[in-house]
Amino acid sequence: MARWWKLRFPIEIPAVENQELEAEVWRRWNSLTKPPRSLGRLESLVTRLALMQGMARPTVERKLMVICCADHGVTAEGVSAYPREVTAQMVLNFLRGGAAINVLCSQFGITPMIVDAGVDGDVVAGVVDCRIGRGTANFAHGPAMTRAQVERALENGMRLAREARERFDVAAVGEMGIGNTTAASALLCAYAGIDPGEAVGPGTGVSAEGVAHKAKVIGDAMARHREVIASGDAVGILAALGGFEIATMAGFLLGAASVRLPVVIDGFISSAAALAAHAIDSMVLGFLVFSHLSSETAHRRLLNWLSVQPLLDLELRLGEGSGAALAMPVLDAAIALYSRMATFAEAGVAEE
Amino acid sequence: MARWWKLRFPIEIPAVENQELEAEVWRRWNSLTKPPRSLGRLESLVTRLALMQGMARPTVERKLMVICCADHGVTAEGVSAYPREVTAQMVLNFLRGGAAINVLCSQFGITPMIVDAGVDGDVVAGVVDCRIGRGTANFAHGPAMTRAQVERALENGMRLAREARERFDVAAVGEMGIGNTTAASALLCAYAGIDPGEAVGPGTGVSAEGVAHKAKVIGDAMARHREVIASGDAVGILAALGGFEIATMAGFLLGAASVRLPVVIDGFISSAAALAAHAIDSMVLGFLVFSHLSSETAHRRLLNWLSVQPLLDLELRLGEGSGAALAMPVLDAAIALYSRMATFAEAGVAEE
Repeated sequence: MARWWKLRFPIEIPAVENQELEAEVWRRWNSLTKPPRSLGRLESLVTRLALMQGMARPTVERKLMVICCADHGVTAEGVSAYPREVTAQMVLNFLRGGAAINVLCSQFGITPMIVDAGVDGDVVAGVVDCRIGRGTANFAHGPAMTRAQVERALENGMRLAREARERFDVAAVGEMGIGNTTAASALLCAYAGIDPGEAVGPGTGVSAEGVAHKAKVIGDAMARHREVIASGDAVGILAALGGFEIATMAGFLLGAASVRLPVVIDGFISSAAALAAHAIDSMVLGFLVFSHLSSETAHRRLLNWLSVQPLLDLELRLGEGSGAALAMPVLDAAIALYSRMATFAEAGVAEE
Repeated sequence: MARWWKLRFPIEIPAVENQELEAEVWRRWNSLTKPPRSLGRLESLVTRLALMQGMARPTVERKLMVICCADHGVTAEGVSAYPREVTAQMVLNFLRGGAAINVLCSQFGITPMIVDAGVDGDVVAGVVDCRIGRGTANFAHGPAMTRAQVERALENGMRLAREARERFDVAAVGEMGIGNTTAASALLCAYAGIDPGEAVGPGTGVSAEGVAHKAKVIGDAMARHREVIASGDAVGILAALGGFEIATMAGFLLGAASVRLPVVIDGFISSAAALAAHAIDSMVLGFLVFSHLSSETAHRRLLNWLSVQPLLDLELRLGEGSGAALAMPVLDAAIALYSRMATFAEAGVAEE
């Protein structure tokens, strides 16, 4: 994709397509003791993982969950059901192992990594310190981040991804940040041209009036930031409306794609990070697996706009990476089937 | 449900409803560090498991997969893409551990049990011998089973379920039987009054002409068996159009419900067993979890008719219990979250 604007740092995302490798994977699938294509999406999933990793025998054994946390200036507009302090409180809950994502990581053998991308509170021991500031500025009044801030957040994410590639076969991204559904909805409007009324939902639980208020806040922000939105400057849009955790995740996705590390995307917020990464370099999409359809209603619009299909629909709306964690056993199962099933020849079973 | 026809054996299915227990489960869910209901279907799943087991702290630790195998007389009508011998060949593959369901059971800590309910071949060591005959009769010409045969199959399933309750917390049912999508489609037509053209699909891979031929075979069978279908005799309909493995599974579901053992249903064929069990005693439905939506198109109609929603949609059409096995980590995760997450009070997190 040609870009008139420049990043401070180079990104080189390899092409995911490889016809020879793809044919090899399908030959193995079709040799296994089952009707052709009867394992449905598990078969296409393994094929995609093989293409991402560039190997006919992909692996997802070592799993990382990167949970990016930050606060949002737009909470001053009263867009969330929870007070801003909950972000820092939940970071402590993550570190003590009491949150949903801790239970899921322990259940499915995933290593959690808590990244402080810009929480409004003290930096606490046990987090990876990628803090850009104590929460973003309020995008109702000006850009949420400066250009320098968003670039630092992107670089932080890229560095984390390159380091992750050394120790992990697959990563997932999740997040925590009171107010971040509002930022994600704003990014959806800006990147995908969707009407604010159709890009908002209840988040973690605001009322119908609260949803209307969120739409109004976002509509006003679209007007305030119309110049950068119209410019098509993907990084500028992210600076104007995003968040520190969203930009860090977007950087992680770009960095992961550049080193062929598959990343499992969680729900609405991390999908908004994927949307931003896609706007920066659309090649990133080939290295992402969308784990689930959130009950946050705008998520379906975002996924449709990217033309991607999530694996699960369990009506989750928690974030933290919870849906991505739940998709991990599906990846494990798909790889196990592909690797360990008997072939027709081995089993002496008649083919069609 | 009042029934004019009698089974040879008593079934007593307890009521699954228990308002006090249900309220207790929801109180715990709402005390955990997450927005209310944000874990979506995982929350309702645990609530249902608690009601099934009659315990505020349900458990799914010890898991059984019952794979019922049998042959079908209707294969003489040329309704399947695979030769009939494949049923017996796949039973051997199950015993040697090379099939998809073996890989999934090993992956998710599920104990597989291979039940020979009526395979056309030698009884082989390692199967549970519940054989009624060497395949059913061809329902194109007469009833697939005699009344005595179907009752024996139902009793076999009930006995297996009562025994399973001693050693397992949750069970799943899967199957293998060349020709059994045709039997399942016929049962869907007979129990739910659905038109044959809308009740058939490609099974494990017949062509469009093959699908039309299946619909014709089933349409003719509806005419031939119209008296028993019109009578509303649930067991008589199962005898006329079902299969040994389907009847054994139906018995398993009824027996499991009677001892409060939750059962995870696999795809189209095991859902047809659930349909038959539901026709025999509709209370059984309270003890079933529908694991996935098969890509066999009639499956959606069957689930809609029962007003149940499957957990997953991975476009599987394999059977064997593969979809049910894939749902097990979702059950595990739901119970783990419910049991191990911190409460707001424990974590010092502000509530809404």
